[in-house]
Amino acid sequence: MSLRVTFLPQRLTVEVPLGTTILEAAARAGIEIAAPCGGQGRCGRCRVQLEEGLVDQPENAHLSAADRAEGYVLACQARLLGPASVRVPEAVPLERVVAGVGVTDFQALSPACDWKHSPTLQVLYVECDPPSLADNTNDLDRLRRALSQRHGVAPVEIGLPLLRMLPQRLRAEGWRVTTVLEPREGGFRLVDVLPGRPPERVYGAAVDIGTTTVKLFLVDMLTGEVVDSASAYNAQISRGEDIISRIIFSQKEGGLEHLQRLALKTINGLLAEVARRQGIDLRQIQAFSAAGNTTMTQLFLGVNPKYIREEPYLPTMAHAPRMTAGEVGLAINPNAPVYCAPCVGAYVGGDIVAGVLSSGMYRTDRLTLFIDVGTNGEIVLGNSDWLIACACSAGPAFEGAGVRCGMRATDGAIDEVIIDGRTLEATYRVIGGTEPQGICGSGLLSALAELFVTGVVDKAGRIRRDLPSPRIRMGEHGPEYVIAWGRDGRPDIVLTEVDINNLIRAKGAIYAGFSILLRSLELDFSMVEQILIAGSFGQYINIEKAIQIGLLPDLPWDRFRYLGNTSLLGAYQTLLCQESRDIADQIAARMTYLELSADNRFMHEYTSALFLPHTDLEAFPSVKALLQRVRSFA
Amino acid sequence: MSLRVTFLPQRLTVEVPLGTTILEAAARAGIEIAAPCGGQGRCGRCRVQLEEGLVDQPENAHLSAADRAEGYVLACQARLLGPASVRVPEAVPLERVVAGVGVTDFQALSPACDWKHSPTLQVLYVECDPPSLADNTNDLDRLRRALSQRHGVAPVEIGLPLLRMLPQRLRAEGWRVTTVLEPREGGFRLVDVLPGRPPERVYGAAVDIGTTTVKLFLVDMLTGEVVDSASAYNAQISRGEDIISRIIFSQKEGGLEHLQRLALKTINGLLAEVARRQGIDLRQIQAFSAAGNTTMTQLFLGVNPKYIREEPYLPTMAHAPRMTAGEVGLAINPNAPVYCAPCVGAYVGGDIVAGVLSSGMYRTDRLTLFIDVGTNGEIVLGNSDWLIACACSAGPAFEGAGVRCGMRATDGAIDEVIIDGRTLEATYRVIGGTEPQGICGSGLLSALAELFVTGVVDKAGRIRRDLPSPRIRMGEHGPEYVIAWGRDGRPDIVLTEVDINNLIRAKGAIYAGFSILLRSLELDFSMVEQILIAGSFGQYINIEKAIQIGLLPDLPWDRFRYLGNTSLLGAYQTLLCQESRDIADQIAARMTYLELSADNRFMHEYTSALFLPHTDLEAFPSVKALLQRVRSFA
Ligand code: FES
Ligand code: FES
Repeated sequence: MSLRVTFLPQRLTVEVPLGTTILEAAARAGIEIAAPCGGQGRCGRCRVQLEEGLVDQPENAHLSAADRAEGYVLACQARLLGPASVRVPEAVPLERVVAGVGVTDFQALSPACDWKHSPTLQVLYVECDPPSLADNTNDLDRLRRALSQRHGVAPVEIGLPLLRMLPQRLRAEGWRVTTVLEPREGGFRLVDVLPGRPPERVYGAAVDIGTTTVKLFLVDMLTGEVVDSASAYNAQISRGEDIISRIIFSQKEGGLEHLQRLALKTINGLLAEVARRQGIDLRQIQAFSAAGNTTMTQLFLGVNPKYIREEPYLPTMAHAPRMTAGEVGLAINPNAPVYCAPCVGAYVGGDIVAGVLSSGMYRTDRLTLFIDVGTNGEIVLGNSDWLIACACSAGPAFEGAGVRCGMRATDGAIDEVIIDGRTLEATYRVIGGTEPQGICGSGLLSALAELFVTGVVDKAGRIRRDLPSPRIRMGEHGPEYVIAWGRDGRPDIVLTEVDINNLIRAKGAIYAGFSILLRSLELDFSMVEQILIAGSFGQYINIEKAIQIGLLPDLPWDRFRYLGNTSLLGAYQTLLCQESRDIADQIAARMTYLELSADNRFMHEYTSALFLPHTDLEAFPSVKALLQRVRSFA
Repeated sequence: MSLRVTFLPQRLTVEVPLGTTILEAAARAGIEIAAPCGGQGRCGRCRVQLEEGLVDQPENAHLSAADRAEGYVLACQARLLGPASVRVPEAVPLERVVAGVGVTDFQALSPACDWKHSPTLQVLYVECDPPSLADNTNDLDRLRRALSQRHGVAPVEIGLPLLRMLPQRLRAEGWRVTTVLEPREGGFRLVDVLPGRPPERVYGAAVDIGTTTVKLFLVDMLTGEVVDSASAYNAQISRGEDIISRIIFSQKEGGLEHLQRLALKTINGLLAEVARRQGIDLRQIQAFSAAGNTTMTQLFLGVNPKYIREEPYLPTMAHAPRMTAGEVGLAINPNAPVYCAPCVGAYVGGDIVAGVLSSGMYRTDRLTLFIDVGTNGEIVLGNSDWLIACACSAGPAFEGAGVRCGMRATDGAIDEVIIDGRTLEATYRVIGGTEPQGICGSGLLSALAELFVTGVVDKAGRIRRDLPSPRIRMGEHGPEYVIAWGRDGRPDIVLTEVDINNLIRAKGAIYAGFSILLRSLELDFSMVEQILIAGSFGQYINIEKAIQIGLLPDLPWDRFRYLGNTSLLGAYQTLLCQESRDIADQIAARMTYLELSADNRFMHEYTSALFLPHTDLEAFPSVKALLQRVRSFA
């Protein structure tokens, strides 16, 4: 029995036998649908829209329920059961833009807490009684009197720099001013005295001080709106790519001061950028909140991170002291309060506390695994009752470092690889759509998963040199697979067996971290109700691939959620909201820090995880099923 | 009837008639006893010791009860009633040394309050538990834990500079350190973390920031002992001698910053001086307390004093904010807390509050008049129930400024003048015993009193040119009296009628201040139970002379007390004692400031006081009696 299938928008019709895949039918009609994985149903690139007709198709993770409701099917998987009409989407160019933080994503974003009930800044207009010989109270007490009488705000402290400008400001404004106040335990501190009526906007800055990237939100402290944002590489990169090399640099003569200056240079640069764009003076920025890992926080404040790296791995402090921008060296109002999210331990810092805060994990009753993969993989397990955290030094492989053709996720980086299961040919996507120059973290993850699933790499991470493909060869540094052929004299982009071993060690460390946290509480992966993925690497991580190589546990995909830059979101929330700061303190206080280097069980878990996906394939049922399917297909 | 009188140590004997004065008897024996006032009993210089015999002598203020008990009599006043033996003291050279603050005077001095119950600093030795993988609390919280467990001290705040040195210090000392803590409302602030066991001494500095002179105590904060002291001219003098000219200078471009720098230069110079002498590092000075008038306090802190001088005469603040030495610019431990005594008004400053504190006036039930005469005369009236203060711009006449031959009380200044009532010749004393170069404040006061009592100047301040003396003459600037003849081509040192009018205006302003304070409470001079005289001018003021010209009210001499530098003493007390700071706050809060320029009655009182001693001679009964005695004598 044959069926008629019409392809749109081309309006081409062919007749095919019952049970033919849409991919084959299209080929017969002379329409090419890209099928990078070779029709194995693994890449999801062959999706088409069924406008009429009936097909048989297996469940596939590349199609969500919403996709299905709209009629999307995978052309290589869907077999025709009757006459049909199929719309072929335009080929989507394989490009993407390096994501800064899209401002528009946050225009309407408001912290989870009701921050206006406990704002970190208060902006109050006051009219003081003008002085006379009969009422000759001094300037400061006159302002205090007005604040107390008109707003019930008392007692009010002031610092020397603001006191120095107070008499002139009060008189120039006819004793009518707008005060910016920082509420504190038992009182208030004057942050600024602005001329006349309140300005339309009072600004604050929230910053994620990442080891690699620093990201900033410019926030309207009156409405909570994110007005602008900016990001830049941390200028400290020139003095070491990862935390350990920064700490080592900081021990050189003047090294600490140099790294502190570089952090300030980066942040002040971002502040200047948004101020220029918004046409405001830097002095109009009245508050600052930062989240960073323990080392980044200490370097930002000029506190020696030496002992973070030496057993027993101690930070100098969990909570930064009360500070002003002037003391810290930030180029905003020198009286602006500066807040840093508290750290839990040497390798679980303010970025993670801020992440747990902004993720809401601390108040859910569902057992949650929170993971932030970067140079280190920081993992938190818990719920509203308890929190336990660890950090696994995954190494920088997933950031593209320590890998032969690795690079950061910028223009020219291959960020996705698909290998045809039959031909073993590779298709890839390049950031910016340019010629490929290397492979970034998510590209490496994708390449490794594809090589494993298609059988090019075995479970021990060895390249099967017996397979018939020109891409598999012996390179200068041992066996390797060519992902992209070099053109115009550029070298081929390859993944070597050494690279693969680095990646396996990295993913193994992280998976072992998960295991240890669960084991230490006698819990099981299956009990984990949600997995929250944070960090900019997390933003592009492909969960399917991550499970295939055993980086993430094999759980239903709907338990995973991408949260984006939770560190920045936490900094933003604590910029505005005092209650959030209190919660951050509670999070830091009740988070148990498990030092893995002190844990013998870790080495056992780690060793078991040095396979693809794991020594125990039973722990990865979906991968096991996929391998069976693919092997039978091949 | 004649008597035999023997003079010792000369062993000369003469026979004289009954009732002869000892002065005359000595002259007959060929022994010269100096009698600068011409034997009027006014100068007290002719004192001798009666070893045997009986004399008749009127009461005289130049002899105390103790003097009398030891047999001292005034040779010009004591009339022989029988045979006698008289010891003539060696002529005392008329010299004195400019008084710094004698350290020895204060070695044993302890503040009135029991400061060890509420010290401003606490010095605590702590042994922290050494960290381990099992006890991996961060450095700061580890120190806090030890302070809390060992000493019950919590919560403890820290500033950024100290935090930066904390990890190194803790480890270098094997986790055994001495903490210096500043108790605050609801907690403590770390001021220093010292190596190992507590040092023998922990230092603090108390400073009186005078318009003319800055004086400093170096204090052992553990015992309260004054270890050293130093004083120097305020380097701001080069930019104006009095408060008003300083304020004017501060309004020039960069003037405020310049004056602030000069104040810091002076104070840092004194700190360096005592540190060098004691062989200590400036960083060992852990606390600082200052008292100064409102303008000096604001200039020290770099706060514009402009509005102190403009109606309605407002200081910027009563209480300086919480500050550290680093913020202020003092060259001691940058974390050291800096305290300034609170100000009451534009012209009643921290020096007066500190003075009222250290004088104990605030807790006496006796009606007390406190006076500090300098460029301004600041006056406080009250007791433990109430305090009222005013400042009278006496002008700088009593500091030697605005007077033709005036100078500061340094070497070469005439500081006491005695005029012989018969010859109208002058005797004088010179500071340092050198040739006279001018007249200082107390010399002017003394000269004016002498000229008035001897009738050279009449009650309106006019020089009686009809009197037969070569010292009375018409000078370039009108009538004048020659106090010292110029030698070796140097000009004569004179007091002109213009000078006299300046001095009368100055004393008139101060006396009017007293009157107004009393009047405003419907009190009378006679009700004043004690008059406390403070300040360095007060230290040399001659009460007798001051009453004679009408600067001080005519009250029994035993109601007057010299207190020395009460501002420095108050700074010292508040350096050590938190309770004293609370009391200073209460003093400042309950002191009513009477602005004289706003008071019409002031002009009336002032006009009445522009006479010697006053329009109303009945208010000065002792002066009236003296004048009657002297006139009859002449
Ligand atoms: S999923 Fe259909 S071709 Fe890859
Ligand atoms: S008091 Fe005796 S001579 Fe002056």
